[in-house]
Amino acid sequence: MLKNFHSLILAMVAAFSISAAAPALAADETFADYKYVLHISDMDPSKQELILNNAANLLDAYPPGAVEVEIVAYGPGLRLMFAENIHAQRINSLSQSGVKFSACDNTLKAMTKQLGYEPKLTPDAKVVPGGIVRIGELVKKGYIYIKP
Amino acid sequence: MLKNFHSLILAMVAAFSISAAAPALAADETFADYKYVLHISDMDPSKQELILNNAANLLDAYPPGAVEVEIVAYGPGLRLMFAENIHAQRINSLSQSGVKFSACDNTLKAMTKQLGYEPKLTPDAKVVPGGIVRIGELVKKGYIYIKP
Amino acid sequence: MLKNFHSLILAMVAAFSISAAAPALAADETFADYKYVLHISDMDPSKQELILNNAANLLDAYPPGAVEVEIVAYGPGLRLMFAENIHAQRINSLSQSGVKFSACDNTLKAMTKQLGYEPKLTPDAKVVPGGIVRIGELVKKGYIYIKP
Repeated sequence: MLKNFHSLILAMVAAFSISAAAPALAADETFADYKYVLHISDMDPSKQELILNNAANLLDAYPPGAVEVEIVAYGPGLRLMFAENIHAQRINSLSQSGVKFSACDNTLKAMTKQLGYEPKLTPDAKVVPGGIVRIGELVKKGYIYIKP
Repeated sequence: MLKNFHSLILAMVAAFSISAAAPALAADETFADYKYVLHISDMDPSKQELILNNAANLLDAYPPGAVEVEIVAYGPGLRLMFAENIHAQRINSLSQSGVKFSACDNTLKAMTKQLGYEPKLTPDAKVVPGGIVRIGELVKKGYIYIKP
Repeated sequence: MLKNFHSLILAMVAAFSISAAAPALAADETFADYKYVLHISDMDPSKQELILNNAANLLDAYPPGAVEVEIVAYGPGLRLMFAENIHAQRINSLSQSGVKFSACDNTLKAMTKQLGYEPKLTPDAKVVPGGIVRIGELVKKGYIYIKP
C-alpha cells in the first residue's frame, strides 16, 4: 500500500512540470499542426493546477514556439483567471511563453451582477464573449480539444 | 477577497443564461457548420445546471435556428434527464428551442435492473442505445465535442 | 422519489457493462473509421469504473475487432493503471480484448520523485512520454476524444 497518499496526489498533479519527449509526427505533418485548446469549467481547485501543468507540458513536448496552447475558462473555472488566484505568477510565466488565456465574458457579467462589482482578472487573460463559443471556434480551426 | 463566495459560484454557473456576442466565422464557413455535442456523465449536480446554461448560451450566440446542440447523458449524468429533475421545465424550454436530449439506454437498463423498475425520463429526452456511441456518431458528423 | 439513491448511482456507473446496439454508419464509413481515445485525469475513483465501462461498451457496440479504444491516464487519473488497482483484473480482460492502456511517464516520474520509489503499474499499461501529447497524437490520427 502507498504510505503517503496525499503527497502522491500532489506529485501526480505536479507531474506536468517535468519535460516530455517530443511526440511522433505523421509523414505529412509538422509541429505547427499541433494546436491545443484546454478547457476548464470546474469548481475543483486541483483542476487549476492540472490544466497549468498540462499547458507547461505541451510547451515542453514540442520545439520552442511550435505548439499553440489556449486555455479557455468559463463557469466556476473562471476562478483560474482571477487576479488574486494563487497561480497568477505561473499564469504570467506561461503567458510570456505563449500560452493564451481566454476568460468568458458571460461568466464575468453574471458574476458582476451577482456581486455588485466586477471581479478583477489577471492582465494575462483576454476576455472573449463566450467561453464555449470560443472553444467551438478553436476546434473548427483545428485545435485539439482536451478537458483535463 | 471575495465576500460572498457561495453567491459567486452560483453566479458563475448562472453566467450562461446571458446572451453572448455572435462568434467569428472563417471565410469558408457558415453558421450551419456549427454543431455541438455536450456530454454529461458526472455525479456532481452543479454540472447539470452548467450544461443547460452552455446549451442556452450556444442558442443565444448564433442566429436563430443556425446552431445544432445535442446533450448526451450517460452514467450518473443520466439523472439530468429524469422526469423528476429540478431542471425539467428548463429542459422542456430548451427542447422547444431545438436542443436535443439523448439518454443512454445502457444506463437506463442497468438502473432498471438495479431498482426493479424503470426510472421515468423527461418526455423531451430521446433514448439512444449507447450514450458514448452516440457521441462518437455525432463527432463523426462534424459535431464539436465539449464536456462542461 | 427514488428509494435507494446509492444503489441507483452504482447501477448508473455499472450501465456500461451491458451490451449496446450497433451504431449507425454513414454511407462512406466503415466501422474501422471508429477509433476512440478515452481520457482520465480525475481523482474521483468512480471515474475509473466509468471509463472501463465505457471501453467495454464500445467493444460491445461494434463488430468484434472493428473498433479501436485507447485509454490515456495522467495526473491523478494514473491511479487507474496502478498494479494494485481494484480494477486490475478487469483491465487485463479489456486489454486481452484489444483495449490499449497508456500511462503518462511525466506523472510516473513526478510520483517516483515524490515517493522515493516508482509505483508499480499494471503490465497491461504501456508507458508513453506524455499523456496529453499522446491524446493529441491520437486525435490527429482521427480518434474520437471522449472524457467520461
